[in-house]
Amino acid sequence: MNFHQKITTATHQNNSLVCLGLDSDISKLPEHLEGPDRVFEFNKAIIDATHDLVCAYKPNSAFYEASGDVGLLQLQKTCQYIKATAPHVPIILDCKRADIGNTNTGYVSYAFDYLGADAVTVSPYMGSESLGPFLQLKDKGIIILCRTSNPGAGEFQDYVIDGGKKLFHIVAEHVRDSWNTLDNCSLVVGATYPKELADIRAIVGDDMLLLVPGVGAQGGELEQTVKAGTNSLGEGIMINSSRGIIFASSGRDFAAVARNETLQLRDSINLYR
Amino acid sequence: MNFHQKITTATHQNNSLVCLGLDSDISKLPEHLEGPDRVFEFNKAIIDATHDLVCAYKPNSAFYEASGDVGLLQLQKTCQYIKATAPHVPIILDCKRADIGNTNTGYVSYAFDYLGADAVTVSPYMGSESLGPFLQLKDKGIIILCRTSNPGAGEFQDYVIDGGKKLFHIVAEHVRDSWNTLDNCSLVVGATYPKELADIRAIVGDDMLLLVPGVGAQGGELEQTVKAGTNSLGEGIMINSSRGIIFASSGRDFAAVARNETLQLRDSINLYR
Repeated sequence: MNFHQKITTATHQNNSLVCLGLDSDISKLPEHLEGPDRVFEFNKAIIDATHDLVCAYKPNSAFYEASGDVGLLQLQKTCQYIKATAPHVPIILDCKRADIGNTNTGYVSYAFDYLGADAVTVSPYMGSESLGPFLQLKDKGIIILCRTSNPGAGEFQDYVIDGGKKLFHIVAEHVRDSWNTLDNCSLVVGATYPKELADIRAIVGDDMLLLVPGVGAQGGELEQTVKAGTNSLGEGIMINSSRGIIFASSGRDFAAVARNETLQLRDSINLYR
Repeated sequence: MNFHQKITTATHQNNSLVCLGLDSDISKLPEHLEGPDRVFEFNKAIIDATHDLVCAYKPNSAFYEASGDVGLLQLQKTCQYIKATAPHVPIILDCKRADIGNTNTGYVSYAFDYLGADAVTVSPYMGSESLGPFLQLKDKGIIILCRTSNPGAGEFQDYVIDGGKKLFHIVAEHVRDSWNTLDNCSLVVGATYPKELADIRAIVGDDMLLLVPGVGAQGGELEQTVKAGTNSLGEGIMINSSRGIIFASSGRDFAAVARNETLQLRDSINLYR
């Protein structure tokens, strides 16, 4: 099963387009969690509470790298736990990597051998040639930044090229036309920009998965996001929420509250599909 | 002392524009090195043999992340060793990171707290707004990808925008005009593209440092690189070589051979300044 098929299977099984971001910033964990494994214990409780409600988990590497080797071990334990207890839910390592070809093999080992992830996010700036070590992996998902969710995303992504097309349109076209030969590419498009999300869905057609961060803490509007981003089957997107779910409560009830937030997000999304 | 001043001091002290890339791929180490600390032992020998000949060390995070937590510990030990034994030589963490604002704080902790680096490479695709947690660090070097050294670098970087300017020209202009308010920005420009290197030097003027990978194994021409990249003082660039130096010998003499290669590169560069 390739990544796209895994996501589709999890989407159907859990009736969910929710991708849950495990952005488990150690400085924001509930105070009652203590000890060297507290990041893992936090993630484990969140996973136990949500694995029947999501189509993917997306840990962002930055929050683990912040603690160096110790943080990476917590991330590895988290990924192992997902694979052991919720193997139907794919893992997206959000790390936005890119380097020259031979160097990317190091990142491939990190994402897929060390962590056992199913997909990885990458940056397009260096071009597809440099990303060869990722793009040749037919069973893994390679998720390319296209129109990101941050307020200043348009600084370069919106530059107009080629008679009216913007840079992010060109990125989407290149991925559709020449990067995706193994049917393993997806695009990142922020929920904070529904017009751009609709543009990209129109460019790539029905068959490409879109990873859509920016609802919840970042403020993206859910109804617009779902309508702009889904394909004609009412699927094909992974709508990510991180802080809005995992840090909804900082008390002992954090996992139950996270479950409730996830359920609410899932059902709201499904209303609009 | 900020990063620019540190580089200038090291350049003068060692009469060198050589940045030595510690791309210490564990699968390419000399066979006689064994045991859990062999990456560190390799780096230590290279550092001992070259610290009077270089203006910076540049470990690329990918080669360490490839081994997960164990690899990060080797990288941390390497950085600690440089700071203890060659504190006049700045450390550039090559990791090409970028994420939305609050997430970048994790990468800032990784580069500057955990590793104690002096500078970091970042990707411009998400814009300066997202890079705030890096750009606000006045004593650290923030080195932004502009025109990279890989064969397919032009796929997006060469797109023509705004009546003849290319995307990488625009990136250089933005960094010069609005990102560099704290005088902490530098640009990455591949030695494999001397014409583009000259363009960028003309855009940013004398005062910005350029990190120039691509000589050695990647095939960039040294004389053209030095002439295109140096400022009017014959400095302002850090010319990186990695594999061509550290893996020049796979035998027990690897450190001595690396010293010799570094010396030769330093002196060849100085001939053309």
